[in-house]
Amino acid sequence: MVHHDQFTICTHGHGDMTDLTERVAEIVEDSGMLNGIVNVFNVGSTGAVGSVEYEPGLMRDLPEHLDKIFPPSRDYHHEQAWHDGNGHSHLQSTMLSTSYTCPVRDGKLLLGKWQQIFHLECDVKSRQRPIVVTVIGE
Amino acid sequence: MVHHDQFTICTHGHGDMTDLTERVAEIVEDSGMLNGIVNVFNVGSTGAVGSVEYEPGLMRDLPEHLDKIFPPSRDYHHEQAWHDGNGHSHLQSTMLSTSYTCPVRDGKLLLGKWQQIFHLECDVKSRQRPIVVTVIGE
Amino acid sequence: MVHHDQFTICTHGHGDMTDLTERVAEIVEDSGMLNGIVNVFNVGSTGAVGSVEYEPGLMRDLPEHLDKIFPPSRDYHHEQAWHDGNGHSHLQSTMLSTSYTCPVRDGKLLLGKWQQIFHLECDVKSRQRPIVVTVIGE
Repeated sequence: MVHHDQFTICTHGHGDMTDLTERVAEIVEDSGMLNGIVNVFNVGSTGAVGSVEYEPGLMRDLPEHLDKIFPPSRDYHHEQAWHDGNGHSHLQSTMLSTSYTCPVRDGKLLLGKWQQIFHLECDVKSRQRPIVVTVIGE
Repeated sequence: MVHHDQFTICTHGHGDMTDLTERVAEIVEDSGMLNGIVNVFNVGSTGAVGSVEYEPGLMRDLPEHLDKIFPPSRDYHHEQAWHDGNGHSHLQSTMLSTSYTCPVRDGKLLLGKWQQIFHLECDVKSRQRPIVVTVIGE
Repeated sequence: MVHHDQFTICTHGHGDMTDLTERVAEIVEDSGMLNGIVNVFNVGSTGAVGSVEYEPGLMRDLPEHLDKIFPPSRDYHHEQAWHDGNGHSHLQSTMLSTSYTCPVRDGKLLLGKWQQIFHLECDVKSRQRPIVVTVIGE
């Protein structure tokens, strides 16, 4: 009824994207569950997960446009807490979300043909990111 | 424990909104489940789902303001992949999300009185959109 | 398999943030469930929930920057419906989301050390906000 697993990705700093789809699909298969949902979760407050057509153009467009909305800067109030220049990273992560839930049908992840599950590193440096995957179903 | 269903909506191009609440509520009733959650999922990477007070003003405000954040343009890197002028559609969909989860209580969808579940077409043309609904509970 | 509970927070108007983590963690403990997910839900269309490093700087940065993206104004089409000056509140809520889902492991909420579950009041006045929490697991 509940199957959980996790894996770690090594990101290469601000704006680095990773396609999580295949690893999440494997965990869904390992779970033996036929129908339900799967939740994909970024542990930490400066990374994000969601869905996108995973292709080279959008891998540049998404972080570039997030930087227009929440620009890298030392002017965030958050800077007073840590002085590490990642205020924009936090806002980008919160805006996109650290949690994404997708249906499971007939033992497979249900996504569109050009719809993948991504991770976006919003922080300003390389990070080891635990990705927690929870399959709920039957 | 798991009930799934889906239906298709026909959208009328960029910025078209659809109120999904009644159809999702019917699927929750059909499921016979009294308590749990329901996940509503847009299959594809250029549509979005979420919650909004579904009234004519916000049906214009939401797409208009998304177009200010991610304006229609041929300047997205995504344009190199498909040359179909929908780079902004992808970013709008990713930003809002393609997945929305809502509680089920006493056999009913739990929402505020002025809170509905919407679909927003972010793509530049009419689309047939499969909406996948998964009820998990007891 | 399903445990649900709710509590009410009293918010102090536009931009007021509340840390929900401890109360959600208590409900997870009360549920007796060891593994699964927990959904946190804002009833209503002018509040939001999500994850953030809950510290004083970001508590100012998040609402300030949302007000740059969707500024307080009487120019929203929504104003025609209610004339209550909260068009931006609706858009901010829809953009962030009214629903957040987090994993449960070994009977505990699984979050990063500097990752908390927040509520953000986007409306222009104080509100009583029901927060609905649903634990699904085993």
